[in-house]
Amino acid sequence: MELKQALAQAQQDLVHTLESYFHSQQDAQPRILAASQYSVQNGGKRLRPFLVYCVGTMLGANKGDLDKAAAAIECIHSYSLVHDDLPAMDDDELRRGRPTCHIAYDEAHAILAGDALQSIAFELLSANDFNIDASAQIRLVQSLSRASGLLGMVGGQALDIAATGKDISLSELEQIHNAKTGALLSCAIELGYLCAPKGDSDTQAALQKYGKAIGLAFQVQDDILDIEGDTQTLGKPQGSDEAASKATYPALLGLDGAKAKLQQLYDEAIAALDNLPYDTNMLAQLAQYIIARDH
Amino acid sequence: MELKQALAQAQQDLVHTLESYFHSQQDAQPRILAASQYSVQNGGKRLRPFLVYCVGTMLGANKGDLDKAAAAIECIHSYSLVHDDLPAMDDDELRRGRPTCHIAYDEAHAILAGDALQSIAFELLSANDFNIDASAQIRLVQSLSRASGLLGMVGGQALDIAATGKDISLSELEQIHNAKTGALLSCAIELGYLCAPKGDSDTQAALQKYGKAIGLAFQVQDDILDIEGDTQTLGKPQGSDEAASKATYPALLGLDGAKAKLQQLYDEAIAALDNLPYDTNMLAQLAQYIIARDH
Repeated sequence: MELKQALAQAQQDLVHTLESYFHSQQDAQPRILAASQYSVQNGGKRLRPFLVYCVGTMLGANKGDLDKAAAAIECIHSYSLVHDDLPAMDDDELRRGRPTCHIAYDEAHAILAGDALQSIAFELLSANDFNIDASAQIRLVQSLSRASGLLGMVGGQALDIAATGKDISLSELEQIHNAKTGALLSCAIELGYLCAPKGDSDTQAALQKYGKAIGLAFQVQDDILDIEGDTQTLGKPQGSDEAASKATYPALLGLDGAKAKLQQLYDEAIAALDNLPYDTNMLAQLAQYIIARDH
Repeated sequence: MELKQALAQAQQDLVHTLESYFHSQQDAQPRILAASQYSVQNGGKRLRPFLVYCVGTMLGANKGDLDKAAAAIECIHSYSLVHDDLPAMDDDELRRGRPTCHIAYDEAHAILAGDALQSIAFELLSANDFNIDASAQIRLVQSLSRASGLLGMVGGQALDIAATGKDISLSELEQIHNAKTGALLSCAIELGYLCAPKGDSDTQAALQKYGKAIGLAFQVQDDILDIEGDTQTLGKPQGSDEAASKATYPALLGLDGAKAKLQQLYDEAIAALDNLPYDTNMLAQLAQYIIARDH
């Protein structure tokens, strides 16, 4: 299967899982239900769910288990975007070409919708109809909660705030990205792995190396696109990093240096896949997509 | 043991569990670590943790399991307070006599600290060292995530916003409180129950009746205190409900009617305990405390 087709399939499966979840919540207060749904059904690339599906399918996981794990991690990612967009944080009015949640609704509902999405993530992971045993299911909860918390995504967000407007080193920039986006991307791989009956510590280690490399590559390409992309394709204003005095790879390494870094991370990702005794074609295509994407 | 002593013990155990958790997060970004800790170590009454301990101890649960469940539910409660206090929500500068999180830190860190506390709750519930089996542990996650989400606390918050400034009926007011505060109080009882080896569906049903009654009683007394209490004892401005045009029991039933309702809920709580074959003395004392408290 081609990457484009597989990505579309993952997006479709994700929408289906979320629709079925929100259908079960029809008795909730209508406006917060709508704001929560709006926030997660946002037409994003769905990279995290795709990674869950990719790794899990490669290792023989049950499809229904992957559906829930994929939807759970996307709920965490979506909540973080809703809260990041708030006036007290990045104050963004546009996300992927659509009004952000606090613009489409209001700040109070954006705060609450983000909060609800985090609860939903853990509700999905604690569903009764998982095929893996309960101890593996607990490890899903453990992995996602750690990746979301103080030593993961939220902590990375705080590092990012602390670094804004300051001169930071390349290793500090990497520390921020490893926490802010890397932790959740690594977690996506781990969720896929934990849903599967196969897999051993060597496989897990190789997949984590791959995850770390594409996580950083994703960020480097994001920084490059902020310079070279155009606002319409990006769905957000081009040049916003510079306007916000954010440290970026091009600012630290120059544009050519950043592109060389991107290629090096791609090579690392592919090398990590090389020794795996599974069909890693889709993961290789994904690494290629990440460094070549235009939005 | 007297209630006062038992409450103090629960508070001490809670502080200990949280300190040990935050100690494990010392590598996190200092300001978000501090804001998270500030938000949960807030000198509150710790009713939810106390309920976990009370029910769990009565039914023979392991102490370490109760510690984690108690800390988890308090993290959820604390995050909800931090987010409720934000300018876009209730815009409160004082909570229990101390500056609220966004005053002591800033809005961005208050949003993030609340987010982190929710992750921490699920990290605590998915710890490796639980004594109950993994399937019971999954039910803890299920119970807490549902009670926190769209059909629980967050949904109740949205109902409350939607009702502000409107004329609502008594049953609508109860629906708000059942979701906004009742769901988490019932969940505290359920967590205690789920941590225990003993217990059957009759016990669970009786405890839930008790929980529902004291949950509403707590709210009725809150509304009465907003009229009769004083700002210093309350740790928040007296009369703030009326100022915010919030529907309250005294507004709907009159002050005497609200007091009669409080007594009726107390009687229901005690009646629910009557048939339980366990030592329910502490739960009875707690019901008494809830209707007689002055802050």
